[in-house]
Amino acid sequence: MGAALCGVGANEVFLSSFLSFLALAASYTDSSDDEVSPREKQQTNSKGSSNFCVKNIKQAEFGRREIEIAEQDMSALISLRKRAQGEKPLAGAKIVGCTHITAQTAVLIETLCALGAQCRWSACNIYSTQNEVAAALAEAGVAVFAWKGESEDDFWWCIDRCVNMDGWQANMILDDGGDLTHWVYKKYPNVFKKIRGIVEESVTGVHRLYQLSKAGKLCVPAMNVNDSVTKQKFDNLYCCRESILDGLKRTTDVMFGGKQVVVCGYGEVGKGCCAALKALGAIVYITEIDPICALQACMDGFRVVKLNEVIRQVDVVITCTGNKNVVTREHLDRMKNSCIVCNMGHSNTEIDVTSLRTPELTWERVRSQVDHVIWPDGKRVVLLAEGRLLNLSCSTVPTFVLSITATTQALALIELYNAPEGRYKQDVYLLPKKMDEYVASLHLPSFDAHLTELTDDQAKYLGLNKNGPFKPNYYR
Amino acid sequence: MGAALCGVGANEVFLSSFLSFLALAASYTDSSDDEVSPREKQQTNSKGSSNFCVKNIKQAEFGRREIEIAEQDMSALISLRKRAQGEKPLAGAKIVGCTHITAQTAVLIETLCALGAQCRWSACNIYSTQNEVAAALAEAGVAVFAWKGESEDDFWWCIDRCVNMDGWQANMILDDGGDLTHWVYKKYPNVFKKIRGIVEESVTGVHRLYQLSKAGKLCVPAMNVNDSVTKQKFDNLYCCRESILDGLKRTTDVMFGGKQVVVCGYGEVGKGCCAALKALGAIVYITEIDPICALQACMDGFRVVKLNEVIRQVDVVITCTGNKNVVTREHLDRMKNSCIVCNMGHSNTEIDVTSLRTPELTWERVRSQVDHVIWPDGKRVVLLAEGRLLNLSCSTVPTFVLSITATTQALALIELYNAPEGRYKQDVYLLPKKMDEYVASLHLPSFDAHLTELTDDQAKYLGLNKNGPFKPNYYR
Amino acid sequence: MGAALCGVGANEVFLSSFLSFLALAASYTDSSDDEVSPREKQQTNSKGSSNFCVKNIKQAEFGRREIEIAEQDMSALISLRKRAQGEKPLAGAKIVGCTHITAQTAVLIETLCALGAQCRWSACNIYSTQNEVAAALAEAGVAVFAWKGESEDDFWWCIDRCVNMDGWQANMILDDGGDLTHWVYKKYPNVFKKIRGIVEESVTGVHRLYQLSKAGKLCVPAMNVNDSVTKQKFDNLYCCRESILDGLKRTTDVMFGGKQVVVCGYGEVGKGCCAALKALGAIVYITEIDPICALQACMDGFRVVKLNEVIRQVDVVITCTGNKNVVTREHLDRMKNSCIVCNMGHSNTEIDVTSLRTPELTWERVRSQVDHVIWPDGKRVVLLAEGRLLNLSCSTVPTFVLSITATTQALALIELYNAPEGRYKQDVYLLPKKMDEYVASLHLPSFDAHLTELTDDQAKYLGLNKNGPFKPNYYR
Amino acid sequence: MGAALCGVGANEVFLSSFLSFLALAASYTDSSDDEVSPREKQQTNSKGSSNFCVKNIKQAEFGRREIEIAEQDMSALISLRKRAQGEKPLAGAKIVGCTHITAQTAVLIETLCALGAQCRWSACNIYSTQNEVAAALAEAGVAVFAWKGESEDDFWWCIDRCVNMDGWQANMILDDGGDLTHWVYKKYPNVFKKIRGIVEESVTGVHRLYQLSKAGKLCVPAMNVNDSVTKQKFDNLYCCRESILDGLKRTTDVMFGGKQVVVCGYGEVGKGCCAALKALGAIVYITEIDPICALQACMDGFRVVKLNEVIRQVDVVITCTGNKNVVTREHLDRMKNSCIVCNMGHSNTEIDVTSLRTPELTWERVRSQVDHVIWPDGKRVVLLAEGRLLNLSCSTVPTFVLSITATTQALALIELYNAPEGRYKQDVYLLPKKMDEYVASLHLPSFDAHLTELTDDQAKYLGLNKNGPFKPNYYR
Repeated sequence: MGAALCGVGANEVFLSSFLSFLALAASYTDSSDDEVSPREKQQTNSKGSSNFCVKNIKQAEFGRREIEIAEQDMSALISLRKRAQGEKPLAGAKIVGCTHITAQTAVLIETLCALGAQCRWSACNIYSTQNEVAAALAEAGVAVFAWKGESEDDFWWCIDRCVNMDGWQANMILDDGGDLTHWVYKKYPNVFKKIRGIVEESVTGVHRLYQLSKAGKLCVPAMNVNDSVTKQKFDNLYCCRESILDGLKRTTDVMFGGKQVVVCGYGEVGKGCCAALKALGAIVYITEIDPICALQACMDGFRVVKLNEVIRQVDVVITCTGNKNVVTREHLDRMKNSCIVCNMGHSNTEIDVTSLRTPELTWERVRSQVDHVIWPDGKRVVLLAEGRLLNLSCSTVPTFVLSITATTQALALIELYNAPEGRYKQDVYLLPKKMDEYVASLHLPSFDAHLTELTDDQAKYLGLNKNGPFKPNYYR
Repeated sequence: MGAALCGVGANEVFLSSFLSFLALAASYTDSSDDEVSPREKQQTNSKGSSNFCVKNIKQAEFGRREIEIAEQDMSALISLRKRAQGEKPLAGAKIVGCTHITAQTAVLIETLCALGAQCRWSACNIYSTQNEVAAALAEAGVAVFAWKGESEDDFWWCIDRCVNMDGWQANMILDDGGDLTHWVYKKYPNVFKKIRGIVEESVTGVHRLYQLSKAGKLCVPAMNVNDSVTKQKFDNLYCCRESILDGLKRTTDVMFGGKQVVVCGYGEVGKGCCAALKALGAIVYITEIDPICALQACMDGFRVVKLNEVIRQVDVVITCTGNKNVVTREHLDRMKNSCIVCNMGHSNTEIDVTSLRTPELTWERVRSQVDHVIWPDGKRVVLLAEGRLLNLSCSTVPTFVLSITATTQALALIELYNAPEGRYKQDVYLLPKKMDEYVASLHLPSFDAHLTELTDDQAKYLGLNKNGPFKPNYYR
Repeated sequence: MGAALCGVGANEVFLSSFLSFLALAASYTDSSDDEVSPREKQQTNSKGSSNFCVKNIKQAEFGRREIEIAEQDMSALISLRKRAQGEKPLAGAKIVGCTHITAQTAVLIETLCALGAQCRWSACNIYSTQNEVAAALAEAGVAVFAWKGESEDDFWWCIDRCVNMDGWQANMILDDGGDLTHWVYKKYPNVFKKIRGIVEESVTGVHRLYQLSKAGKLCVPAMNVNDSVTKQKFDNLYCCRESILDGLKRTTDVMFGGKQVVVCGYGEVGKGCCAALKALGAIVYITEIDPICALQACMDGFRVVKLNEVIRQVDVVITCTGNKNVVTREHLDRMKNSCIVCNMGHSNTEIDVTSLRTPELTWERVRSQVDHVIWPDGKRVVLLAEGRLLNLSCSTVPTFVLSITATTQALALIELYNAPEGRYKQDVYLLPKKMDEYVASLHLPSFDAHLTELTDDQAKYLGLNKNGPFKPNYYR
Repeated sequence: MGAALCGVGANEVFLSSFLSFLALAASYTDSSDDEVSPREKQQTNSKGSSNFCVKNIKQAEFGRREIEIAEQDMSALISLRKRAQGEKPLAGAKIVGCTHITAQTAVLIETLCALGAQCRWSACNIYSTQNEVAAALAEAGVAVFAWKGESEDDFWWCIDRCVNMDGWQANMILDDGGDLTHWVYKKYPNVFKKIRGIVEESVTGVHRLYQLSKAGKLCVPAMNVNDSVTKQKFDNLYCCRESILDGLKRTTDVMFGGKQVVVCGYGEVGKGCCAALKALGAIVYITEIDPICALQACMDGFRVVKLNEVIRQVDVVITCTGNKNVVTREHLDRMKNSCIVCNMGHSNTEIDVTSLRTPELTWERVRSQVDHVIWPDGKRVVLLAEGRLLNLSCSTVPTFVLSITATTQALALIELYNAPEGRYKQDVYLLPKKMDEYVASLHLPSFDAHLTELTDDQAKYLGLNKNGPFKPNYYR
């Protein structure tokens, strides 16, 4: 632990650590930094290179420790490094990347390098960069351009610095949100044409790729890793099962036992939330528009109601629909005092927060991410993260979940880079089931889980290859 | 309750009732019946018709009561009758059917009649017919040809009697297993050509249809209702969650608390079994060949092992793989005394029962469906249903589950019969998601579940029709 | 039951086996027996003794097999036999017993004999004797006087034959219900005075002992084994968790998923029922009079309501209160069609069944233990076991639970018989915690459970003996 | 903590809020306070009184808001205020108190005042005082002497200032730990003699009272509220079920799904931990010394093992035994890399932390309350809270749980103060069951739970008073 921290005290480290994914969290070393923009600083790493732009290269040691801790929970990537290191499947790959820059993505980036790739990286979010981690990457020789608190202009400058380099031309893109892809497509059409493959993680980025493809303008193959089975299950069902309790506890210290909760939407996210809440003694109601999900909710032991039927009695309202205005001002008006309202869905439109910004209501910020909205009669509604995603704002995402995403990204890059010509056209693809299964298998050792192998006889009986894929392509 | 039953006593009724689906169960009225084959009897119903062939038309009243009891749990079909009765969507439909003949299918058949169809029916299994129900159908005017204990020759004779009738030509087929379809295809090619649609429920029947289609010989559209989402969830996950406990208790009276159980296979069937067993205090281990399912098992709190690792210590072994020889003689040799072995999968090949039929092992039948297989050293393995499906052999299937299947069949018939020309070609189709959702919605009132409706605004935001379908076609 | 069933074989055994505890169940061999009273028969066992009175000594072999099967799940008693066989702690004990006579009690009786006791036994219930088991005991030399279907006169005659024998005087009593104790007390006061100890299992019997004690008429020490911790937990919480599902399924084939259930009473019995029902997907409501139990229900995730609030909407009503008229005619009038009503409590007074025996309601017996009570408007309420205990009437009690009771009884007899003079006065005692713990420890090997031993240092720190007792005497 | 953070605001509040119970947490206003000891300051509240000693009276407004937030979850106390306000049952009571000084105890203190008492208060822990809350109490006129970070000398000075005041003599004591009681007993024997009752909450304090009583030196009645049923259930089973997940997540962000966990001890604390962990998908093993608890663990679906059997494979070790050296250096040596070790039991002796303070092991503090202990081969064990209680150190205690404790304390004070002479002697008493039930009933409205009332007839049948107590005194 560095000298700077001794004076600051352990609590602050703690705070920062569990807020590391928060857009608004202050980095634990900000306070000791000067206010000069990184773009104006002259920094070199210990090997003399200045092919990067980070907040403070001196934080590298601390960032390295964070990366090492992350590596312990990302053994799938480490194991991938070992298995593929001999053959260097990414030798010759020149990857530009644009993702959150955290300890976990650092493990991904360094894995890509270990497999032979050259990487240049920027951040997909102006707040989410862990400056120490960026410093550690820069120290290790990665060309990283990112810091916490970039301006809009900084943001595009960093992206451009990744792409625009004399004597180096990217041939692969790893993107989260589509901004990098869009920049290359618009500003460097000649580079774009020669890209061998794009790997995109986010819903938004995937949507943009499909639009490009529909418009006939996607001239390179792209891999939609967002919809791989393994990633989906972890990002939705399991991750929400873990994070809903954590997000509520950290913000409100609410006791779950006996609480009446309504969960809007019983898709995978809703299923995860409900399972955890029921298990801890909450009484859960569901709203649904889709009869198939509604029937599942019934069979799983939840009453399916319209929101109006229970809105006066519930203690907590959670939205998981992907829809908009699911919780309206009318609903908010009818909630009882101290009712907690939050969003676990895919957008920040589910709760009509805008309708609460009216003169007769008073907002009181009681903690980070926690507002009391106060009605004229004194009734308070407890709004979390201003209606944005609770689990991103107010809880942590387990490293293990991030490991699955990162491994999926790495395999998608390897697949696209090494695929024989003609396997992938100018279109958007899902990860082949066999690779999806391979991602899963790389994570089994963490659980000390032992797979059974088919005998030849059994494989023949089932009409399957002994090594998979075991799922049909339409499985999800 | 008929006079015959008074002397027999309530227990026998009880026994028969819960064994009604057993292939080997003796009907509760067998004992009082003569031994004359129904084919040689002259019977007429109260309206003077003799257009049927059943065991004993006099049992109609008792069968009617069974049908009425079933109707109470099949309100979806009753509600379908009411909604569609005005328009008679099956007017003109001439349906030949071949299914189990039970109180529940009787509700289906009478629904089809109420919607305008003419029906002729036979049994898809020589043992499963409830004679009283067949009598009640015959009394109500349905041309039914079926009794419990048919010979192979009887079986085909009954099917033929349904198809081959002067002045009546079938235009729809409802099949369970494909035997009827095959018979029409082979024996009455001219009838087959003019069929407007085939609805098939079973895995086997569907497989045969796909083969026919591949061979280019399927000249009519067919609907695979086996793979509809709603039916799949109920037949597998939920139904197994209900029936695994019941099947084990009724056969062995085993206490679940603290029992060590290994479940082979963590697909939907395995997931249902594991959820129920864990909930009742069993300690459950999983074996899997597929890393994605294995990872789900881990996250759901089960240790994933190879069968050999736990075979010496477990109290119960349950197969749910669809595979063959999952439990081998070697495994059976290593089990501890009193270990229970049973199969919940899709075939009767999962346990290598044949390997147990060797001279050194003694078989002792201790109850119906329960054999003790005794090793020379006195060790006993408790084998249930000789390795056939436990939930079909040793527990009941809830009427509600059968209601979902029957409603799906009815809707598939309506869809195929009324589809505009060209919507369905000479191929095998899945039930459109919208109808799948409709089946689900018809079952929600049983749970007093209230669906939420999208506003126009929300529907537009989501890009959905307000009335569904809400699921993409590839959803499962 | 007619001759025809002889040919059916296995099913009949199955039926009988799981009904073995039913007061009303017909024995599976009744049908082949003649109608001569056992009291008028001359029977001798293979060793020439006729010191017993059973239905048919020839059934001994079949009964022996049932006992052997029971032994497999009662390893605690078998282990007790082995541990204590050398010292014969019951040498000289002359025990008269009056309990249900089943395979499980036979294992107890033969354990007592193996430990040195001489036993004479009668049945505590005129219907519950398993004739084959009684025959097997008689064949093995136990003086047993019991058969299924005794008259009232037979009942007391059997008890008397146990006590009244020339040259043999009982010095220990094992009773279940207090009838034997009362008979000895009244008819053989001289014998009573010399009894060294009474062991009583039932609530009723214990109540009678306390009354005798209060009245100053209990001149011998008695052990209340009903209230031992281990037995209580198993008889209530765990046993009900196992049997509620079983009892409902066997009688009604109800699907649990999504069912709305109200459980009256949240004591140990209610807790067991609720845990199982919730786990299988039912939505459970609780009624309670006691705020402490009500608060527990809240924290465990159940809504606490008054019965009237939910009576119109629930699918199942279960009483677990020990109270009377918890479900009144008024409640019954308001239930919806097909509502199932049953009792898991300690008495048969919880549901006001008497109020249903009025002319305007029709009763229809649809299965053994299942009545439809039909209102003038056609509404049916499904009443199970006529309001008597569901788990005794309609499900089986796992042998393991009976093993705990039997082991507790055996240890209580050993303790009372061997206690130094003065340890027990003329009073009613609870089993010492140390012996309670010993019963528990004898059952751990079934689960392959491994206890940790305190180090000397830890024992000192906790102020405990390393071998227990670990619980204070007031623990329950 | 640097100046930069002053501008951050909300995060710091958040941090402080959830750490409010931490002994080591720095108060959020510490940094801006001067270093003058409160004892040397001259402060007066807005009414001109200076009958208190707190850190900074100016923080009163902020503290008031914290109290108001706490009131929302302590409706039982508020309701008690309303019900008893008319009669002022504590009129004339002069209470000296020594407890943690937090928003929740402030609600208790102000309730006592509202019921007529005069209160003087100090802190039972030198670190746990919320300075703002103390200020708010002082501002409201309570004579409070407490601040965060008292020295040992300060601690006793504060206590003395409560007791020793001219013209005011305490007649009731509310204590948490026994320090205040001891001080009065030793220093002011004349005051002690005239005390009408002592209410003591902690295990330690109760132990000291029993010792005093045994020694014949307890000349006043005392109430042990620690062992009331309601409090026990909430402090142990339910509170631990809530806090184990929270404590682990906040310190380590661990994912629960699939984790192998061993819980040492299956008492109420262990049961609570295990229920939560199993529900979230962990695989849980139990160690036990007591066969009754071990048997419960088996029936609840946990494998009972010796610690050595699983120590190499588990991911988390949790102690809940109340014992010492349950986790030894030998166990720690054998744990796998990254294993998390923590204590939820009643003491800080369960893990042999001392054995880890040896030269060959490196300690690295990675977050507040989180140490990595590093073996020479690089293996890290993650030790939480240095082996002290995890839920006190690293998670929050729900206000609802504290409400139950506070209500129990208030009722105990009322009971002792108003009891007719002779009801309580110079001894230590448990809270009467009726009052225990009353505490529970006051908390039911939070859950919208509706108690059922016995009819006269039912009360008679059960031999109970309609208003309780419903539990026997020995119930726990």
